[in-house]
Amino acid sequence: MTGTAPAAPIGVGIVGYSFMGRAHSHAWRSAGAFFDLPLRPAMTALVGRDPEKARAAAAEQGWRDVETDYKALLGRDDIDVVDICTPGDTHPEIAIAALDAGKHVLCEKPLANTVAEAEAMAAAAERAAARGVRSMVGFNYRRVPALAMAHRLVGQGILGTVRHVRAQYLQDFLVDPEFPLVWRLQRERAGSGALGDIGAHIVDLAQHITGQHITGVSGTLETFIRDRPLAESSDGLAARPGEQRGPVTVDDAALFTARFDNGAIGSFEATRMAAGRKNAMRIEINGSDASLAFDFESMNELHFHDHTERAETAGFRRILVTEPAHPYMAAWWPPGHLIGYEHSFTHEVKDFIEAVAAGTDPVPSFADGLRVQRVLAAVEESAANASVWTRTDPEGAPR
Amino acid sequence: MTGTAPAAPIGVGIVGYSFMGRAHSHAWRSAGAFFDLPLRPAMTALVGRDPEKARAAAAEQGWRDVETDYKALLGRDDIDVVDICTPGDTHPEIAIAALDAGKHVLCEKPLANTVAEAEAMAAAAERAAARGVRSMVGFNYRRVPALAMAHRLVGQGILGTVRHVRAQYLQDFLVDPEFPLVWRLQRERAGSGALGDIGAHIVDLAQHITGQHITGVSGTLETFIRDRPLAESSDGLAARPGEQRGPVTVDDAALFTARFDNGAIGSFEATRMAAGRKNAMRIEINGSDASLAFDFESMNELHFHDHTERAETAGFRRILVTEPAHPYMAAWWPPGHLIGYEHSFTHEVKDFIEAVAAGTDPVPSFADGLRVQRVLAAVEESAANASVWTRTDPEGAPR
Amino acid sequence: MTGTAPAAPIGVGIVGYSFMGRAHSHAWRSAGAFFDLPLRPAMTALVGRDPEKARAAAAEQGWRDVETDYKALLGRDDIDVVDICTPGDTHPEIAIAALDAGKHVLCEKPLANTVAEAEAMAAAAERAAARGVRSMVGFNYRRVPALAMAHRLVGQGILGTVRHVRAQYLQDFLVDPEFPLVWRLQRERAGSGALGDIGAHIVDLAQHITGQHITGVSGTLETFIRDRPLAESSDGLAARPGEQRGPVTVDDAALFTARFDNGAIGSFEATRMAAGRKNAMRIEINGSDASLAFDFESMNELHFHDHTERAETAGFRRILVTEPAHPYMAAWWPPGHLIGYEHSFTHEVKDFIEAVAAGTDPVPSFADGLRVQRVLAAVEESAANASVWTRTDPEGAPR
Amino acid sequence: MTGTAPAAPIGVGIVGYSFMGRAHSHAWRSAGAFFDLPLRPAMTALVGRDPEKARAAAAEQGWRDVETDYKALLGRDDIDVVDICTPGDTHPEIAIAALDAGKHVLCEKPLANTVAEAEAMAAAAERAAARGVRSMVGFNYRRVPALAMAHRLVGQGILGTVRHVRAQYLQDFLVDPEFPLVWRLQRERAGSGALGDIGAHIVDLAQHITGQHITGVSGTLETFIRDRPLAESSDGLAARPGEQRGPVTVDDAALFTARFDNGAIGSFEATRMAAGRKNAMRIEINGSDASLAFDFESMNELHFHDHTERAETAGFRRILVTEPAHPYMAAWWPPGHLIGYEHSFTHEVKDFIEAVAAGTDPVPSFADGLRVQRVLAAVEESAANASVWTRTDPEGAPR
Repeated sequence: MTGTAPAAPIGVGIVGYSFMGRAHSHAWRSAGAFFDLPLRPAMTALVGRDPEKARAAAAEQGWRDVETDYKALLGRDDIDVVDICTPGDTHPEIAIAALDAGKHVLCEKPLANTVAEAEAMAAAAERAAARGVRSMVGFNYRRVPALAMAHRLVGQGILGTVRHVRAQYLQDFLVDPEFPLVWRLQRERAGSGALGDIGAHIVDLAQHITGQHITGVSGTLETFIRDRPLAESSDGLAARPGEQRGPVTVDDAALFTARFDNGAIGSFEATRMAAGRKNAMRIEINGSDASLAFDFESMNELHFHDHTERAETAGFRRILVTEPAHPYMAAWWPPGHLIGYEHSFTHEVKDFIEAVAAGTDPVPSFADGLRVQRVLAAVEESAANASVWTRTDPEGAPR
Repeated sequence: MTGTAPAAPIGVGIVGYSFMGRAHSHAWRSAGAFFDLPLRPAMTALVGRDPEKARAAAAEQGWRDVETDYKALLGRDDIDVVDICTPGDTHPEIAIAALDAGKHVLCEKPLANTVAEAEAMAAAAERAAARGVRSMVGFNYRRVPALAMAHRLVGQGILGTVRHVRAQYLQDFLVDPEFPLVWRLQRERAGSGALGDIGAHIVDLAQHITGQHITGVSGTLETFIRDRPLAESSDGLAARPGEQRGPVTVDDAALFTARFDNGAIGSFEATRMAAGRKNAMRIEINGSDASLAFDFESMNELHFHDHTERAETAGFRRILVTEPAHPYMAAWWPPGHLIGYEHSFTHEVKDFIEAVAAGTDPVPSFADGLRVQRVLAAVEESAANASVWTRTDPEGAPR
Repeated sequence: MTGTAPAAPIGVGIVGYSFMGRAHSHAWRSAGAFFDLPLRPAMTALVGRDPEKARAAAAEQGWRDVETDYKALLGRDDIDVVDICTPGDTHPEIAIAALDAGKHVLCEKPLANTVAEAEAMAAAAERAAARGVRSMVGFNYRRVPALAMAHRLVGQGILGTVRHVRAQYLQDFLVDPEFPLVWRLQRERAGSGALGDIGAHIVDLAQHITGQHITGVSGTLETFIRDRPLAESSDGLAARPGEQRGPVTVDDAALFTARFDNGAIGSFEATRMAAGRKNAMRIEINGSDASLAFDFESMNELHFHDHTERAETAGFRRILVTEPAHPYMAAWWPPGHLIGYEHSFTHEVKDFIEAVAAGTDPVPSFADGLRVQRVLAAVEESAANASVWTRTDPEGAPR
Repeated sequence: MTGTAPAAPIGVGIVGYSFMGRAHSHAWRSAGAFFDLPLRPAMTALVGRDPEKARAAAAEQGWRDVETDYKALLGRDDIDVVDICTPGDTHPEIAIAALDAGKHVLCEKPLANTVAEAEAMAAAAERAAARGVRSMVGFNYRRVPALAMAHRLVGQGILGTVRHVRAQYLQDFLVDPEFPLVWRLQRERAGSGALGDIGAHIVDLAQHITGQHITGVSGTLETFIRDRPLAESSDGLAARPGEQRGPVTVDDAALFTARFDNGAIGSFEATRMAAGRKNAMRIEINGSDASLAFDFESMNELHFHDHTERAETAGFRRILVTEPAHPYMAAWWPPGHLIGYEHSFTHEVKDFIEAVAAGTDPVPSFADGLRVQRVLAAVEESAANASVWTRTDPEGAPR
C-alpha cells in the first residue's frame, strides 16, 4: 500500500441511493483504504430523481455532485464508470445507454427482469468489450471471502467430482401479513419474487463455485399471502375498489430441482417466509473427495470435510476465513476478526477497478447474468407446466 | 416403577438378527427396566435360517429359544407378538401370516417394497384389528424424544399455519465406489434405494409432525455409480460375463418437491452420497408463528424459534430434550445426559406394549406405512415422467 | 461375537439401586450383547436396606437375588464382583471389606470423602492386587468414546506439548432456591459439593487425557444459597429451631487454577448454578501442534484442530465419534447413529471384565482415585487459605 | 439522515497509523455515512514520525495533513479531537498534554502500562472534564452490538442476580516459536503480555456488562516460550551476546479467579497460545433468572437462556443481533446481514461525537480505564505472591 506515484483517478457516477446505493457508496469510499488500487476512485456524481433527497444522500455518502437524470452522466468527461443501483426494470435502458456511451458499467443483480432484456444487455456488453469498455453484474456474494475460498477449493480439484448441490436462501420478512405491498412484490417492477431477488444469488453461486452450468430444472412456486396493504411505494398500483390492499403478483417462495452439465444434481429453495431465518443463504456441495457448507448468517465461516482423511479424525471443519492466506483477507484485520456484509461490495469494487486498469473483462459478466436469467425463466416455465422438466437453453444442444 | 403385583408376561418372537434385530433385542431387554410396563416382555424365540448363527445370536441377545422358520412362531401359544426385522421383500408374507394367526405384529419399515404389497398388509391389519390383534410399522424416529417434542409443539398449535417443510436424509457410505453390491442396492430385494430406505423416514416424519398429508410430488432420481463389486450378500445376482461387478438397480439419491393438504410446500432429499454426512436426518418446519429444526446427528436437540417473541431476544433456541417434561425423558437420566439411537426402539416397544395392554391400535399403523409407500411410488412415477407433478392418490379426490 | 464355546460366568453383586444402580444394571445387562466378553456377567444379587424396595428394583433391573446387607455378598461363592453404587461415605468400609474377602471391586466415584479414606482404600487395593483381586474406580467419562479418542490422540503425540487445559463442569439444578437439602448438599455424607461430585470428573479426565499430573492449585469455593428446605432425604440433619430449612454445608461452585507436571497450566470450574447448562462437562486442551475440545451436552462429538495444516483449510473439525475406527464404536450402530450416557458404563463393565479375565489391573485404579482426592483436598485447603498456591503432594518432591 | 442544516465540522487529528490507526480511520470515514451525527468529523491531520510513511498512510486513509510530532496538533485551531492509536507506553504523555491543551481525547486501550500512569491520566481527565473537555478510553468491544445488547439485558434486570462470569480471550499467534520478539512481547513497551493486551478487554467487559466491580483476584501467569528471534521492531533490545534471540519479558498466558461487589465469582483467562483459537473472546454470565454467552468469533450472535421459561421449550437461543431493535443496528443492513469488527470503532466514534456535541462525558472514561488497570496490577501482584488473594483497591474499604 505504499505505491511510489499516486494512482490516477477513475471517475464514478452512481444511479440510486437506497439500500444498494449505500452499500456501493461504502465500497467506493473504502476500497482504496484497504487495497492498493491501480486507479483511485473519484466519487464524482450521484443520480436521483428527487434533487433534495439526492443532495442529502450525496453529502452523507461522500459524492461530490448531484444529477437528476442518469443521462447527464453519459456526456460527462469526468465519469468513467456508471454504477447502477436501481430496481431491475430500469437496468436495461441505463446499462445499454451507458455502455454505448463508452462508460464502464457495474450493474446490480438481477441483470434484468426478463431473458429478452438480459440478452439485449449481454449483446451491448459484448459490443462494448470490443471497444475496451467493461461491464460486470453485481453478484456480490461471489466475493464473500468464504465463498471465494469455496470456489478456489473446487478449482484446486479438492472436491473431486461434484455430485450434490443443495442451496437455500431463507428470509422471513414476509411472514407478517401486514408487511406492505412494496415494489419487490409487484411483477412489473421486480420481475419475480423470492425467485429473482434471492434465488438469483444461489443460482449464480452454484454455477460459479462448481464451475458447472444448470441444464434443466423442475420448479414449483407459491404465494402464501395473496394480498397485502398498499404502501407509499406501491406506486402506480391500482387497489381493488373500496380496499386498501392490493394483490401480490410474485412468488413468496420458489422450490426447484436441477441438473448440471457434469451430472450433478441440485436442490434449490428461495423464500421470504421461513420464520426465524433472517438471511440464511446456505449452500452445501458434496463431491467424491470432499464437501463444503456455508451459511451467510455465519458469513466468515466455511465448513469443509476432507473425505480422504483417516476416519479417526475426519469431520467437517469450521474454517474461520480470516487468514491472510484466504481470498481478500490479507488486506483486513488479524485472524479471527470478522468482516461484514458490506465488504463483499468493497471486494467487488476492487476487482472491478483492477480489471478496468488491466484492460480485462471482469466477472461475473453480463453473459453470466443472462445465464442466471435463463435458469430463473426455466423455473417459472416449469412451474407453469406442472413442474415438468424444462431445459434452460431450449434451442441449443444439451450443454 | 413399584407396581404392587408383577406384570403378566407377553411372549415375543423376533424374525431376523442382524442390524435391526440387535436394535430391537436391546429394546425388548431394556424397556421394562426404564418404564413401568403393563405387560412384561418375555424374549421367547429368535428365528433365523442358519441354526448355528441363530443360536449364537439368541445367546448373545437374550432370546430363550431358536426357530429356523417364522411359521413355527405362529403355532406357539407362548408367542403373542411377532417382531419382523428382515428385508422389505419378506414383510408381506410374514406380517400377513402372523396377523392372520392372531399374533400382534411389529414390522420394520418400509412396510413393503410396493404399493400393492402395502395395500395387502394394511388390509390384513384392518381385518386383524377387528379381532383385537394389533399392528405397527417401525418408523422408530417418531419416538426420538426431540421429534416427539416437535410433534407435540405442532399439536399445541404453537407453529400456527405450517408453510414450509425441508427434509433431508444424508448419508455417505456409497461415496466409496468399491462399496459392494449388497442387497440394499438391488431393486428385487430393497424395492428402491435411498428413496425407500431413508427417504421413507422423512416422508413419514414430515406427515406425522405436521399432521398433514402429501398430496403430490415432483421427483428426480439418480444413480451416480452404476456398477459395484459383487459381494457375498449379492446373492442370486448374475454378474455380467467375465466381470466381478454387477449393476446397481436402485437410486443413489432422490430429490423431490411436495405439496401438503393444507397448502404447505416441501423439499425432500435422500442420498447416500453426501460425503461427510453420516446420518444427517434433518427436518426444518416453518410456520406462521414459529419454526422447528432437527438434525439426527445431534438427536437430543430440537431447535425452536418463537416468531411471536420480542425481536430483541428472539432466535432459534437449542432445546436439549432431556428434561422430565419432554416426551419419554422422565424415565431416563438427569437433564443434560443424552440418550442414543437405540432408545427410539425402546420407546417403540414401550408404546407397542402399552397399546396391546390397553386394547388400542398403536401408531404408526400399517395404513400410515401404506401412505408413505404411496408417496414413494409417486416420486418414482414422476421421476420416470420428466418430473411431472404426480398425485399420491391417483384415483381419489384431491386430499 | 460368535465364540465357539460359551463364556464362563462371572457372578456380580451390586450395592445400591438408585441413579447409579440403574445405570450400572443397564451396563451389566447390555455389555455382553454388544461386546464379545471373555466372561459372561451373571447378575446374581442386589443389596438394599429396604427389602421390599430392593426386591422391586431387582425385578425391574434383572438381578436374581436380594440381600439387605452388603456383608452377605462377601461369603457367597457365586459372587466374584462387588459393584458399589452407594454414596461416598460408605465406600471405604464396603470396598475394603470386599477386597479383603477376595472380591473384585468396581467402586463409584469419588473414591472416598477424604484423602485418608482414599489412602486406606488404595492400600487395600494394592494388597488385593498382589493376590490377583482387581479394583477399579468408576470414572465412567474416560469411556465416553469421544474422550477415549481424545486420550488416544494425545497418546499418539498429535497434540505436541500440552500447554493449556480448560475444564468446566456446569449444571444448574441448584439455581432453584427451593431445591431441597438432599444428602449431596451435606458435608458429612457427600464430603464436598460441586467440587467432589462433578469437579472430580474433570480432574480425573484432565490428568488422564493429558497423561500429566496436577502438582498444585489455587482454589476458590462459594455457596450462594446458604440454606434450603429440609427434604425427606435430609436424614439426621437438625433443622434450626422453628424452621423447616437447614444449612447447606458444601460448595455450590468451585473455581481453581492448576499447574501440571510438564508445565501446562489449567483452569477448572465446577458448579450447579449455571442457569441453562444442564450437564456441560467441557474440556479444551491446547498443545503446540493441535487442540481438542469436548462438551458432554454433545457427547458423541470431539472437536479437533490440527495446527500443522495449511492455513487455507485449517479449522476445528467436528468429529462425529461414531466410526468403527473410534474407541468402542465398532460394537455399535452405523456411523452417525449416536449412543447415550449409559454406555459409558457399558464400556466400563466391558473393560473391567476383560481385565479380570486377563488377570491385569484395570484403570482407573484406586491409586488414580486417590490422586484425584488429593487434588480436591488441595483445592479446599487453598480456598481456606486465601487461595494461596497449594501442593497436591505436600510431603513429596515436586512431581 | 436528512438533517435540514449541514452539521458543523469537528476537526480530528490521529496519532499512529498501523493496525489501530487503520481501524480508527475507517471509523472516522464511515460514522457519518451510517449515523446522523450532530457534528461532521473532519479528518484533518495524521501524526507519524516517519514523514514519508505518514504521507502515504494519510493519502490511503483519507487524512488531509501530516504532522511528525503530536505536539503540532495541540496548537492547531482546526483540531478539536486527538485520537491516540500508539503503543501503551506513549499514552500518558500524549493524552495528558492533549487534555491540558483543551483537546478532546479518544485513547486506545489499555489506558496505560501502570496504575500510576493511569491515575495521572484519570486525574487529567477529571480536570479536563471540569472545563468541558471530554475523554474516552477505547474499549471498543463494549460497542459490538451483541455485547451492547448483553449490557442492556442485564440492565433490564432480566438476568436476576449475577452469580458466575467466565471470560476467556484466546488467540494463537504465539504458538509458533519463531514468531519474532515484537514490542508487544517487551515489558518496557507493552507493560504486560496477554494480560494487558487482551485480558484488559475481558476485565472491562465483565465489569461493564454486569455493572459490578472486581474486588479481588488470585492470579497465575506463564511464559511458555522464553526467548524469540529478534525482529526489526525489537528496537532498543539488547540481544544476548552471540545470539539473534532475545528474552520474552511478558506473559504468554494469564489465568485468574475473581470476586465481584455483589458476590458473583469469575474465572478469567487470556492467552496467545491456544492453537486454533484466533480471536475467541468469550464471555458467559449466569444469573438467577437467565444466562448469556458470547464468542467474538461469531460476533453478531448473542446466546441467551431464559431460566423462567417452561422447561419444554427452554434452551439457549442464538440471537442474531442484526435487528433494528438491537443496539446500533437500525443504521445498518437488513436483518441477517452481518457487520464486522471494524464497526465497533464506527460506533465508538459515533458515541464519542454525540457526547462531545451534547456536552456529556462519554464512557468508558479514563476512570474506567484506571479501574481495569488496577485489576491487572492485582493479578500481577497475586501471581508474584503464590497466587494469594489480592485486593484491587488495597487502600480502600472492601468494595
